[in-house]
Amino acid sequence: MSDLNHDTLPTDTDFAVAAIKSTRKDTKNLPAKAVWQIQFDADKVDVQTFKPKDFVPTLDHQGTQWLHFVGIHDGATLERVLQPFQIHPLVIEDILNNKHLPKIEAYSDFLFFVGQALMYHKQRLVVDQICMIVGKNYVLTFQTRPLGIFSLVRENLQANHGALRSKGADFLAYTLIDCLVDDYFAVLGQFEGKVEEVDKILFEPKQDKILQRIHSLKHETTRFRHALLPLRESLNQIVRGDFNMFNAETRLFARDAYDHTVHLIESLDSAREMVSNMTDLYLSFQSHHLNIQIRLLTVITIMMMPLTLIAGIYGMNFDNMPELHWKYGYFIILGVMALISSAMCWIFYKKGWL
Amino acid sequence: MSDLNHDTLPTDTDFAVAAIKSTRKDTKNLPAKAVWQIQFDADKVDVQTFKPKDFVPTLDHQGTQWLHFVGIHDGATLERVLQPFQIHPLVIEDILNNKHLPKIEAYSDFLFFVGQALMYHKQRLVVDQICMIVGKNYVLTFQTRPLGIFSLVRENLQANHGALRSKGADFLAYTLIDCLVDDYFAVLGQFEGKVEEVDKILFEPKQDKILQRIHSLKHETTRFRHALLPLRESLNQIVRGDFNMFNAETRLFARDAYDHTVHLIESLDSAREMVSNMTDLYLSFQSHHLNIQIRLLTVITIMMMPLTLIAGIYGMNFDNMPELHWKYGYFIILGVMALISSAMCWIFYKKGWL
Amino acid sequence: MSDLNHDTLPTDTDFAVAAIKSTRKDTKNLPAKAVWQIQFDADKVDVQTFKPKDFVPTLDHQGTQWLHFVGIHDGATLERVLQPFQIHPLVIEDILNNKHLPKIEAYSDFLFFVGQALMYHKQRLVVDQICMIVGKNYVLTFQTRPLGIFSLVRENLQANHGALRSKGADFLAYTLIDCLVDDYFAVLGQFEGKVEEVDKILFEPKQDKILQRIHSLKHETTRFRHALLPLRESLNQIVRGDFNMFNAETRLFARDAYDHTVHLIESLDSAREMVSNMTDLYLSFQSHHLNIQIRLLTVITIMMMPLTLIAGIYGMNFDNMPELHWKYGYFIILGVMALISSAMCWIFYKKGWL
Amino acid sequence: MSDLNHDTLPTDTDFAVAAIKSTRKDTKNLPAKAVWQIQFDADKVDVQTFKPKDFVPTLDHQGTQWLHFVGIHDGATLERVLQPFQIHPLVIEDILNNKHLPKIEAYSDFLFFVGQALMYHKQRLVVDQICMIVGKNYVLTFQTRPLGIFSLVRENLQANHGALRSKGADFLAYTLIDCLVDDYFAVLGQFEGKVEEVDKILFEPKQDKILQRIHSLKHETTRFRHALLPLRESLNQIVRGDFNMFNAETRLFARDAYDHTVHLIESLDSAREMVSNMTDLYLSFQSHHLNIQIRLLTVITIMMMPLTLIAGIYGMNFDNMPELHWKYGYFIILGVMALISSAMCWIFYKKGWL
Amino acid sequence: MSDLNHDTLPTDTDFAVAAIKSTRKDTKNLPAKAVWQIQFDADKVDVQTFKPKDFVPTLDHQGTQWLHFVGIHDGATLERVLQPFQIHPLVIEDILNNKHLPKIEAYSDFLFFVGQALMYHKQRLVVDQICMIVGKNYVLTFQTRPLGIFSLVRENLQANHGALRSKGADFLAYTLIDCLVDDYFAVLGQFEGKVEEVDKILFEPKQDKILQRIHSLKHETTRFRHALLPLRESLNQIVRGDFNMFNAETRLFARDAYDHTVHLIESLDSAREMVSNMTDLYLSFQSHHLNIQIRLLTVITIMMMPLTLIAGIYGMNFDNMPELHWKYGYFIILGVMALISSAMCWIFYKKGWL
Ligand SMILES: [Mg+2]
Ligand SMILES: [Mg+2]
Ligand SMILES: [Mg+2]
Ligand SMILES: [Mg+2]
Ligand SMILES: [Mg+2]
Ligand SMILES: [Mg+2]
Ligand SMILES: [Mg+2]
Ligand SMILES: [Mg+2]
Ligand SMILES: [Mg+2]
Ligand SMILES: [Mg+2]
Ligand SMILES: [Mg+2]
Ligand SMILES: [Mg+2]
Ligand SMILES: [Mg+2]
Ligand SMILES: [Mg+2]
Ligand SMILES: [Mg+2]
Ligand SMILES: [Mg+2]
Ligand SMILES: [Mg+2]
Ligand SMILES: [Mg+2]
Ligand SMILES: [Mg+2]
Ligand SMILES: [Mg+2]
Ligand SMILES: [Mg+2]
Ligand SMILES: [Mg+2]
Ligand SMILES: [Mg+2]
Ligand SMILES: [Mg+2]
Ligand SMILES: [Mg+2]
Ligand SMILES: [Mg+2]
Ligand SMILES: [Mg+2]
Ligand SMILES: [Mg+2]
Ligand SMILES: [Mg+2]
Ligand SMILES: [Mg+2]
Ligand SMILES: [Mg+2]
Repeated sequence: MSDLNHDTLPTDTDFAVAAIKSTRKDTKNLPAKAVWQIQFDADKVDVQTFKPKDFVPTLDHQGTQWLHFVGIHDGATLERVLQPFQIHPLVIEDILNNKHLPKIEAYSDFLFFVGQALMYHKQRLVVDQICMIVGKNYVLTFQTRPLGIFSLVRENLQANHGALRSKGADFLAYTLIDCLVDDYFAVLGQFEGKVEEVDKILFEPKQDKILQRIHSLKHETTRFRHALLPLRESLNQIVRGDFNMFNAETRLFARDAYDHTVHLIESLDSAREMVSNMTDLYLSFQSHHLNIQIRLLTVITIMMMPLTLIAGIYGMNFDNMPELHWKYGYFIILGVMALISSAMCWIFYKKGWL
Repeated sequence: MSDLNHDTLPTDTDFAVAAIKSTRKDTKNLPAKAVWQIQFDADKVDVQTFKPKDFVPTLDHQGTQWLHFVGIHDGATLERVLQPFQIHPLVIEDILNNKHLPKIEAYSDFLFFVGQALMYHKQRLVVDQICMIVGKNYVLTFQTRPLGIFSLVRENLQANHGALRSKGADFLAYTLIDCLVDDYFAVLGQFEGKVEEVDKILFEPKQDKILQRIHSLKHETTRFRHALLPLRESLNQIVRGDFNMFNAETRLFARDAYDHTVHLIESLDSAREMVSNMTDLYLSFQSHHLNIQIRLLTVITIMMMPLTLIAGIYGMNFDNMPELHWKYGYFIILGVMALISSAMCWIFYKKGWL
Repeated sequence: MSDLNHDTLPTDTDFAVAAIKSTRKDTKNLPAKAVWQIQFDADKVDVQTFKPKDFVPTLDHQGTQWLHFVGIHDGATLERVLQPFQIHPLVIEDILNNKHLPKIEAYSDFLFFVGQALMYHKQRLVVDQICMIVGKNYVLTFQTRPLGIFSLVRENLQANHGALRSKGADFLAYTLIDCLVDDYFAVLGQFEGKVEEVDKILFEPKQDKILQRIHSLKHETTRFRHALLPLRESLNQIVRGDFNMFNAETRLFARDAYDHTVHLIESLDSAREMVSNMTDLYLSFQSHHLNIQIRLLTVITIMMMPLTLIAGIYGMNFDNMPELHWKYGYFIILGVMALISSAMCWIFYKKGWL
Repeated sequence: MSDLNHDTLPTDTDFAVAAIKSTRKDTKNLPAKAVWQIQFDADKVDVQTFKPKDFVPTLDHQGTQWLHFVGIHDGATLERVLQPFQIHPLVIEDILNNKHLPKIEAYSDFLFFVGQALMYHKQRLVVDQICMIVGKNYVLTFQTRPLGIFSLVRENLQANHGALRSKGADFLAYTLIDCLVDDYFAVLGQFEGKVEEVDKILFEPKQDKILQRIHSLKHETTRFRHALLPLRESLNQIVRGDFNMFNAETRLFARDAYDHTVHLIESLDSAREMVSNMTDLYLSFQSHHLNIQIRLLTVITIMMMPLTLIAGIYGMNFDNMPELHWKYGYFIILGVMALISSAMCWIFYKKGWL
Repeated sequence: MSDLNHDTLPTDTDFAVAAIKSTRKDTKNLPAKAVWQIQFDADKVDVQTFKPKDFVPTLDHQGTQWLHFVGIHDGATLERVLQPFQIHPLVIEDILNNKHLPKIEAYSDFLFFVGQALMYHKQRLVVDQICMIVGKNYVLTFQTRPLGIFSLVRENLQANHGALRSKGADFLAYTLIDCLVDDYFAVLGQFEGKVEEVDKILFEPKQDKILQRIHSLKHETTRFRHALLPLRESLNQIVRGDFNMFNAETRLFARDAYDHTVHLIESLDSAREMVSNMTDLYLSFQSHHLNIQIRLLTVITIMMMPLTLIAGIYGMNFDNMPELHWKYGYFIILGVMALISSAMCWIFYKKGWL
């Protein structure tokens, strides 16, 4: 019979996304500059790799064409390889200048999408811009360097996994955005790991640059927000049908990606609030801790004072001080001192000040 | 004659929901994995329980069919038992992956609803995802383990309580959501009890991990908000008629559930504000308390100092110090010391520093 | 000729509502459970009081009928007396369960309004729910106990004050809501009086549970907001014509009540901000005050130290200490001590530390 | 040739409105109660003053009629003088009760506008309500006492300055509102002067009730906001054409007044933020200052302690203490004490603690 | 083969705009008062400079006319040179009064745009108002003094760079706004440099007016916001087609400028949040630092106290104190004192209090 066996089931972790592993492929063996030409329809798929300078673009393919441009940083090359697609100069400018916020824009013949791929590299959060142009029967993607983020899509196309090959350019575009969203789960998980790491040592007395670490965590939440909020808005535009390039079926799938983005933002906000609380808690705790130490020191001072006073009194030089001449006067006074000390220890211990 | 007998009437408690008892049934005797098949119309009701592997789904029932799936964690089984309902793969994915925010979505033939059931288990807030598919004449519900949350509905159907049996699938769906909302009243009441518990000991000197408890209360408000805010939005969509599967009469009832959700959120916000104020008050109070202690200690120090000074003066070795040779000089000085002490005691007591 | 005689004119008090007196009637002589049946048209008015168990409802009256139900807490009685009006079960449920936020809802034949009457009783803010059903030619009002809040309306009807008798059910409904709004001015005035009371003693050294009082004032702002914000929204719905039961003329009057509600909310927000500032100011002031005391104590300590040191020096037992053998050495040293004390007093006084 | 001669050009003062002088006329010689009747068209203007009890209203004028009522506080008189204009009772109520937030409302034949005139009188911010009724060919304005705020308009009409006389009642109404807006620039400038005054003495050690002054500045921002925010909304309603009484040309001018109101609100928000920062800065600065003083006192204490200890050591009564018998022992020890003092002075000075 | 060579690629700097250089031309040789008359079409361009008093305006040009007015501060001259364009008096007023927030307004024959050019001059943020009137075939721009901000556009027209000459007045207007936006990148970069400068010295013990610097940085964020937020709204109005003077192609370009403005605001918000955090961090750090110093001082006090007590004890004058007569009593006691000192040093060092 079943019992409420909660302890082995997932419980109330705010950080639900932490466990997800990145699906990014290893980029060791990928060329720094390349054009991947992938032409497919329901029956076949053809994958070719060119050096940018050798690549000759064409539009007379059958089915859907996906061109994946990696590492093209000069305008002349870019304009040459995009020549048959009649891309607007503003789009080319945006692709070359990789400092844009995510967005999706309609042009007469195509959509232009910009996203940001985030990644931790040597403990720092690195941002890469990913651009995508979605036409009637082609998809063009642009990265400044190999990221391994779309490799799985290419392999799925080749292995004919899922329904990807039998669908059009819009579904491919959705699939690529979905890849990006999945990637966020992994990197946000890493971020949340860092937050929890700081959270664990928050109340430990040894403070090693915690304020600086929290400061940089706050910065990272800002970066995540800059990547995720406009992405959610872009997906929202797709879902509510602003672009008729996406058919109803694909829009259903886009709604799923939208859901995930909302979930990511909620998790981010939870982490962000946690970080915000951490600063306050840390500072309060440290301040409280320090004050308790100062109280302790003050208590010790207090405990010495009556003893010093007594010693001072019996150090006075009056002619007539009977106690001085008692045989055991000195030892009695030492005893009285010990007694007073013990009594004060006991009082302060009772009050919790020791 | 009546009087304004307020003291026995409910007064200004913010936490109006605290008294409500959960209607969850005991889950001790419920099977961990099961399919509950309930077919009913105005005249009769038929309840059967299957093991998931033995269950054969069918659509040729009369009246309304409610299938309640508990503990199905693998996609293959789920796809088999849902086969006649032609459920979209994205929905199946959502059912299996229980990390969604509450939502309601329209598909061509059915609605898909996701909610979160909250519960305190061993002092921790546990979240369970509840999914529901609402078709023309069927309702499908999904839980990862038995919760006892819908048992009352089943019993009401069998006992023919209320008008449930004479109404359709949409009213059953409303009733189940209403169950979920009622459940929140109980669990939010427990939460508010925890808040009041902390509130009561806020100004007591003994502080036992209060900051950590407040910290976790803050987290729990976040979890409640994540469950309640999207639920309110979902109910709002039903009330304003986004889904024609819900008829006008049922929408009136949904408006009532919406009201309750609004009320829950208001109560949660009050509690949340109270928690937020508690942190500030606690820290201020502790800091103030500590400073008063340090002032006390400083006062004691001050009271010793003139005595020590006097003792020091009469410990000086000048040849000509007349007082030293007075017969009762020593005793006079002791008296002066007592006098000074008493005067200072009196002054500091008057100032309220002792 | 006139001068800018501002001092006798109302000036910049934020708390403009403070002076208004409540129009609530004394409830001493009102029965705890009663049905007031008031039937009127332009020519006559007929007022009768029944015990709930003796009351037989009827719809065949002329002109407008106002039934005022006080203290009916059981569903059976309520259902019986409402039988001819065909009230929806959800409405009856809401009337019995007095934990609703203010709202106004349209049903097919009538409107359902819920409001909250606030009142200070023994220094605590007490909330009573007031329900109202507005039909074509009848108005039904419900209270759990006599409040005296609508007595003035009844008397005005009887005395034929204003145009009330010559207008319909919708104008009566407006008048009753207006009564409620006027009542808020009185109770919010009391609240503001309490805020000013605390404000006056904020900077006095004797602190008697001020934090707790501010804490409870904050709670009360929340209660006021929960009563006023949804009321404003309800009035807004009436004003913008969501309900055609209210004719254009009555809507003009509703706009006036709406204005007053907006004004109440503004006053509340001012008071709320004042309360919020008070916490910070109080804590800062106390903390500052305490620190100044500790500085004073430290200054006193400092003033003793050189004296103690000098006494210590002349308590040393060196063979060769010429001063010890001076005839007036002791008195010179006492003078030096007095001099040092005076100098330090003067310095610290100049610095404002004494 | 020109240079970037910024220093003589207006630069980055947030408080751009500070320099504007009020255009209010002196009210010394204005009657406390009066009706100003001004009838004008493009060719002529006729100004007459009546005592309220002598005034007989009329509507058979040519061109436009502006009636300016000052100091009418009783309903009977007001109703009599407004009789030919058929003003709604709610409007009369609003005019008599001068506690309204600014607003503009449409009635069947006229518009009703309420504004607030602010003014500093004896260092306090005084509020006067100004009401205006705008009909087809008449404008009625109401003040509780003479303010001098519209005198310039009357003089311009008489002097035929601007195009005012050749335009209708709606342009006159705009001109009067514009007067009110211009008046805010002057009074907000005074407010900003007060803010800057406090800002200048913020970091001075002598604190003379700065917290209370900041507290009252905060209150004043609230009063300004209550006057300006609804005024902006009222102007916005005029600009976007909610009232067809204002023709397109006048709406262009109203847009200009709207612009100014937006500018006023921006300046107010800047000042408000500055005030808000000032509290924090002041408290931090004072706290920091006090702590530095306490550190200084603690340092002085520390500097005495080793000297006292040394004196104590050589005050011990051991038989065998060789130093006591050195010839210059005492002077050596005094030298050692001076050395230790100097060294500590030097160390603490280096650390910046002295 | 490529590697994730992040260290040489742009990484996670929030302040992406920092590196951009201003394109403003040197204003040394530009006349302080001038009218630049530029008439162009696809084939030719004609640039002439006049003194304002010599300039005779004309509308019978071919192609597009751009009149750039610099340093006209009197209304008479302005009215004369604008006479053929029939500019509304409110616009002339706005041009002369340079205290407006950015906006764009439609008049019957032209659009009126106001923007703010920001610049650091002698460490202060200086604001210049830039006005622009856009007609069917002319663009009029107004500055109070030469800024060099549009010089590049004039040179590009002369050099026939880009497509500017072959397009109409609307595209010229866009180009000029784009110039302004590009200028913000440079000046915001300088601002961010100042923020980072303060950030670097935040945790250094020597605090040199950091609070005042942060205070002025906060002010500057307000100024930037006042310039950028209304500009974004103006561009948004252009993009969404509120003004049909801008054709579809130009609106595409305006969308690009809008994008940049959004980016600028995001960067500003990041910097603003950083500044806001800096205050809190700085104050906390200073307070913590100071408290640690006070703890250190208290520790030193504590370490002296037992020694002083011991000295006091052996300074007592009891007849029978055996230790006093031991041969090495004094030295033993000195040793004990040294031991106690060392032990306390060790304890406090272990606790990290030294
Ligand atoms: Mg943050
Ligand atoms: Mg941010
Ligand atoms: Mg969240
Ligand atoms: Mg959050
Ligand atoms: Mg959160
Ligand atoms: Mg959260
Ligand atoms: Mg904070
Ligand atoms: Mg929270
Ligand atoms: Mg709240
Ligand atoms: Mg609330
Ligand atoms: Mg609340
Ligand atoms: Mg809150
Ligand atoms: Mg606070
Ligand atoms: Mg604080
Ligand atoms: Mg509050
Ligand atoms: Mg407020
Ligand atoms: Mg307010
Ligand atoms: Mg306020
Ligand atoms: Mg507030
Ligand atoms: Mg404020
Ligand atoms: Mg305010
Ligand atoms: Mg502001
Ligand atoms: Mg501002
Ligand atoms: Mg501001
Ligand atoms: Mg702050
Ligand atoms: Mg700011
Ligand atoms: Mg940002
Ligand atoms: Mg921000
Ligand atoms: Mg930011
Ligand atoms: Mg703070
Ligand atoms: Mg503090």
